[in-house]
Amino acid sequence: MTHAVDQHSAKHSAPAPSVRLPLRPELADEKPYGAPQLDVPVLLNVNENPYPPGEDVVATIAEEVARAARGMNRYPDRDATDLRRDLADYLAVETGVSLEHLDVWAANGSNEVMLHVLQAFGGPGRTALSFAPTYSMYPEYARDTHTAWVVGRREDDFTLDPAYAAETIREVRPSVILLASPNNPTGTALPAATVEAVCEAALGVDIDGAHPVVVVDEAYAEFRRPGTPSAVALLERYPNLAVSRTMSKAFAAAGARVGYLVASADFVDALRIVRLPYHLSAITQAAAGAALRHRESLMAQVATLRAERDRCVAWLREQRLPGGLPFDVADTDANFVLFGTFGDRHAVWQGLLDRGVLIRETGPDGWLRVSIGTSAEMAAFRAALTEVLQVQGEEQA
Amino acid sequence: MTHAVDQHSAKHSAPAPSVRLPLRPELADEKPYGAPQLDVPVLLNVNENPYPPGEDVVATIAEEVARAARGMNRYPDRDATDLRRDLADYLAVETGVSLEHLDVWAANGSNEVMLHVLQAFGGPGRTALSFAPTYSMYPEYARDTHTAWVVGRREDDFTLDPAYAAETIREVRPSVILLASPNNPTGTALPAATVEAVCEAALGVDIDGAHPVVVVDEAYAEFRRPGTPSAVALLERYPNLAVSRTMSKAFAAAGARVGYLVASADFVDALRIVRLPYHLSAITQAAAGAALRHRESLMAQVATLRAERDRCVAWLREQRLPGGLPFDVADTDANFVLFGTFGDRHAVWQGLLDRGVLIRETGPDGWLRVSIGTSAEMAAFRAALTEVLQVQGEEQA
Repeated sequence: MTHAVDQHSAKHSAPAPSVRLPLRPELADEKPYGAPQLDVPVLLNVNENPYPPGEDVVATIAEEVARAARGMNRYPDRDATDLRRDLADYLAVETGVSLEHLDVWAANGSNEVMLHVLQAFGGPGRTALSFAPTYSMYPEYARDTHTAWVVGRREDDFTLDPAYAAETIREVRPSVILLASPNNPTGTALPAATVEAVCEAALGVDIDGAHPVVVVDEAYAEFRRPGTPSAVALLERYPNLAVSRTMSKAFAAAGARVGYLVASADFVDALRIVRLPYHLSAITQAAAGAALRHRESLMAQVATLRAERDRCVAWLREQRLPGGLPFDVADTDANFVLFGTFGDRHAVWQGLLDRGVLIRETGPDGWLRVSIGTSAEMAAFRAALTEVLQVQGEEQA
Repeated sequence: MTHAVDQHSAKHSAPAPSVRLPLRPELADEKPYGAPQLDVPVLLNVNENPYPPGEDVVATIAEEVARAARGMNRYPDRDATDLRRDLADYLAVETGVSLEHLDVWAANGSNEVMLHVLQAFGGPGRTALSFAPTYSMYPEYARDTHTAWVVGRREDDFTLDPAYAAETIREVRPSVILLASPNNPTGTALPAATVEAVCEAALGVDIDGAHPVVVVDEAYAEFRRPGTPSAVALLERYPNLAVSRTMSKAFAAAGARVGYLVASADFVDALRIVRLPYHLSAITQAAAGAALRHRESLMAQVATLRAERDRCVAWLREQRLPGGLPFDVADTDANFVLFGTFGDRHAVWQGLLDRGVLIRETGPDGWLRVSIGTSAEMAAFRAALTEVLQVQGEEQA
């Protein structure tokens, strides 16, 4: 606090008393989560969509937000019914599965959706399970809800072995199973058969007279390659299954914080109990609805990004590590590529940063993740990486 | 879920399998929180500000949101630094205490601010304490964070006895103490001496080598009468004290969901650990900043509401219950009035609703709460209540 009087003048004020705050012991050494936010020309580090909304999208948002602001003295629609209906309509088109708003939940980002899931179905005395390497926020959701956190493993190629997954579920007896597909940071999508095996295994486990829920986190689903399924098609068969999505990536709306989840109406009703009342503002509901009206142009950009992603994968597969071996490049259905493996990945990351390209030092040791940007940004990435490898090769020679 | 095929035709689809979801046992009988949302001409039930934002405010919001939307493909400022600075500036003017952004926290409504407080300082094995009658969401925050919940009592006139409060704190040993001032649903503001006594008592209690935190919930602070203090003035003396505020009421922005808290930078840092990353959207940050720029005209409306509130209190004190006794009308520093006491408060509530006026059936038995609306709305309330009392008097005669 800044005081009107000079802090350093004993005449005017005693030093502020020192008092320890009762921060929970398990949080004592924690740091706020988040990737470093650096000011760099080419940002390919947090899987953002590189295309800002067009002026048509901005105009619709401004118009709809102005409309919402005119009634802003009143609390928002607690159930966000219109937005959930719009999301159901969109998902029906995207997945071919007919849905209604009662099957859809929406919150401030997938983060909050996942918090609601763990508040409703996790908590003290219960366990959440996922398979690593996977999204680094999952253990934070578990920590924030006092849910025990267990990770199984993915295979060396980042796929998930269905028999192993089923066995782990029977052993660990989680109440919540989180599966990212496409997985972050690897880009790996799960075949339908794997999700089915996980759901079937969950139905064989008893938790307080009920069965574990399975959440397939499809934050990057719109970037999946032709033929890659969405778990939305399996919802009809598994009432303990939910699929979460986000407007952050495909809709280029990371700044608007809109995540959603589709499941049975019973599943959604459970989330309604733990949500804070009026959790989703009228402004957010309006902005999200406005962006959804521009789905066609936004999906055209997704197609451009998919093509750019495939070009990036192909290019990386042609490159050679300083020792002459080819890169490992993970198959990806997302808007990012995990590649490696480097003896000193930090040196490569730093070399790219020195050349104005910020990517992410994440995933298993030796791997790096690059988000897919515009053509110009990807060209900058390729040029910078080529240089870095050249310099490293020369140093080794 | 609606299916493309007819649910009732056995030929096309089997009935959806019935599977129990592992909802936490303590949530099994819970209903989603919220006042009934009815479509009634005069809404005086949830302490909203009756004045919609003017077109000047709407225009600034649309402009600032459009600006934020142009960069919406990127994640928002995780720390909401600009907004927190604007809030610090506003509070400094409102309270006369100099503040900087590191002393301020912001989230999606006071709800989320309180969740952060209880996540950081409450949780399993810890206790939150308040004094009833008070805000009905507090036990929900405790429930959502697995914090034990204890309520002491307020006096018959809804004040809090400092000696009793101190004694209760020493007995209960809470890690979090919540004090609403002005209190909801009673309107009662706490004198500085009472907050001081609570803070001092907290400093005498040891929780894991630290001291309980005290949060004074000043959601309605801008409506306080001349001479009523804000606990913000005590922050310098008590590093375990925090004051929460909201833009929902004075800023007529319930739909925008912006709550905030002011405390020591250490206190705020603890909340940063448990917040979900990017919890506050770029759109919300922009809309809130825009509303803050219109603080002068919005505060003029607050003055109008204060005067309307005082007229309402004076009028209620002139009325007689069907038996001839005067009303009890609680002193209020908020934008609502608690009055009674009625032998059958539900009948009075229903009688008002039948006449198009929705108020709230809340508080101790026999009391009703009316939010302060426009002059026209308050006239409608007075006319309806006069009629209801007349009808009840005739029925009794």
